[in-house]
Amino acid sequence: DNHLKLFSLNSNRALAEEIAEVMGVSLGKSSVTRFSDGEVQINIEESIRGCDVFVVQSTSNPVNEHLMELLIMIDALKRASARTINIVTPYYGYARQDRKARSREPITAKLVANLLETAGATRMIAIDLHAPQIQGFFDIPIDHLMGVPILADYFEKKNLEDIVIVSPDHGGVTRARKMADRLKAPIAIIDKRRPKPNVAEVMNIVGNIEGKTCIIIDDIIDTAGTITLAANALVENGAREVYACCTHPVLSGPAIERIEHSKIKELVVTNTIKLPEEKQIDKVQQLSVAPLLAEALIRIFEHRSVSDLF
Amino acid sequence: DNHLKLFSLNSNRALAEEIAEVMGVSLGKSSVTRFSDGEVQINIEESIRGCDVFVVQSTSNPVNEHLMELLIMIDALKRASARTINIVTPYYGYARQDRKARSREPITAKLVANLLETAGATRMIAIDLHAPQIQGFFDIPIDHLMGVPILADYFEKKNLEDIVIVSPDHGGVTRARKMADRLKAPIAIIDKRRPKPNVAEVMNIVGNIEGKTCIIIDDIIDTAGTITLAANALVENGAREVYACCTHPVLSGPAIERIEHSKIKELVVTNTIKLPEEKQIDKVQQLSVAPLLAEALIRIFEHRSVSDLF
Ligand SMILES: Nc1ncnc2c1ncn2[C@@H]1O[C@H](COP(=O)(O)O)[C@@H](O)[C@H]1O
Ligand SMILES: Nc1ncnc2c1ncn2[C@@H]1O[C@H](COP(=O)(O)O)[C@@H](O)[C@H]1O
Repeated sequence: DNHLKLFSLNSNRALAEEIAEVMGVSLGKSSVTRFSDGEVQINIEESIRGCDVFVVQSTSNPVNEHLMELLIMIDALKRASARTINIVTPYYGYARQDRKARSREPITAKLVANLLETAGATRMIAIDLHAPQIQGFFDIPIDHLMGVPILADYFEKKNLEDIVIVSPDHGGVTRARKMADRLKAPIAIIDKRRPKPNVAEVMNIVGNIEGKTCIIIDDIIDTAGTITLAANALVENGAREVYACCTHPVLSGPAIERIEHSKIKELVVTNTIKLPEEKQIDKVQQLSVAPLLAEALIRIFEHRSVSDLF
Repeated sequence: DNHLKLFSLNSNRALAEEIAEVMGVSLGKSSVTRFSDGEVQINIEESIRGCDVFVVQSTSNPVNEHLMELLIMIDALKRASARTINIVTPYYGYARQDRKARSREPITAKLVANLLETAGATRMIAIDLHAPQIQGFFDIPIDHLMGVPILADYFEKKNLEDIVIVSPDHGGVTRARKMADRLKAPIAIIDKRRPKPNVAEVMNIVGNIEGKTCIIIDDIIDTAGTITLAANALVENGAREVYACCTHPVLSGPAIERIEHSKIKELVVTNTIKLPEEKQIDKVQQLSVAPLLAEALIRIFEHRSVSDLF
């Protein structure tokens, strides 16, 4: 009979360990280090011949290091005769480079999909790809899971009153709608526009937020410029208090400082990306995707559907 | 008629500029930077539609950063309708991971070849691939140039007397033979062996080096352990003086300190890899591969043979 093996690379070992614990398996033995000149050195320290192998690796910052670790691991697994190579990328980096917005731009999200397939991945499991179209960049099966239920559950238990779910831009309205459905709440939209070139953007709020508890939702929070400006605009326009949430806490550059100094009461994120200690501030609450991923991996291994998981 | 465009990425801009100067062209306008979260951002700032594009990038340390820059650049060029995409990797990283030395190892040199082709490279130009078999890892044409003539010319002009070319190990004898042919000198070989497990290696010298000027040659000098031990063994066995040379100065970790404190009189390298200032010590002499590459690129562009360049 068939064997499942779960391996972790270096981007988020704590998450991989938690997934293993929930699944009741132990992590495969391997070491992922660097040669003296910075080249990735991988040792897989147990046989995986004929096994269904799952590899947990978010392609988060440093994205190029984490991606190369993943590609080289896939190569090693393929040559060691794994039956299937299932890559679990809770956060899929380069997802925002998913189209040519200007001439001569790369489409790195598609390039990375090609690279993973070329290396030998046979299936991918991801959470909240920045655009659902990225699924079409792959020719292998993808299981695309959602962070919204995890975030919604958290806010449900808080028993907040008079809530409005706010999309920080036009692109995020579908996500806000899903969250609102779960929490039986109305939605509002931050409607940014630039009246003239070189004139500051105007933040219009579409929807009623006066005296309400606002929950802004996004998929990725990177430098936190959008979300903190949105929070401040909501408060200025009469919101009672403002929460924010997202699936992927990239939180680069000035993000933490901006959040600290913003009107955001609490920022709720998941652990698709490991937060280094200096980013674990009181205002940031991190929820685990391990139970979701563990359940999905077991079902995938047993050839059962994952579509009712969200 | 057809146009040639030469671009540089970040690993060795000085070399690319020198190649451009020798060729009498200017470097294509582009910027290769990072987004706030570390993702590679590339802007190609001139049309390359229908052009034969050459991209200069050594995949030296930080190898994963430099490799991803190259892959993303190739993707951008392909989508911008380049006629051909010719990658010039004076130093090809991951070349030492060219076989499974143990179970479940990756063959990263082959993986990288596949990645470059998947991205869209149509030709590769490289110097002294660690193993010539790496040419067979590619399905696109490769022009494989040699550093030996450049190193040999330098020593020829020095007019040293009574020289012996020394291979630091068995794997390098063919290279030493080529160098010796050019300099009309005999060869010697450092014949390392371990008498028993857990016993120090014994360094035997095969060939006559007593009272001679030894020139040790290797392709890559990384941590410089092999080459400095070899130099000291040669002096202990009666060599008059010891020079060392290589094509690719990786020089990681303790390399510079080891060279400083070794019996090596001078280390001669090329500029396939950019040496940061702290590695530009008096003992290290750097020769340029720009004239060789410039001539090769012109010939490739004009569909002429490069085989008599070395
Ligand atoms: N890592 C990144 N950080 C910031 N912006 C990015 C990044 N990757 C891509 N972009 C840009 O973000 C835009 C797409 O973002 P979005 O509109 O949110 O899908 C494109 O114009 C990209 O050039
Ligand atoms: N970047 C690296 N630094 C040191 N050793 C390496 C590196 N890449 C591969 N190797 C190892 O070096 C050996 C091959 O070196 P060689 O015998 O010189 O071809 C293999 O056993 C590899 O595992």
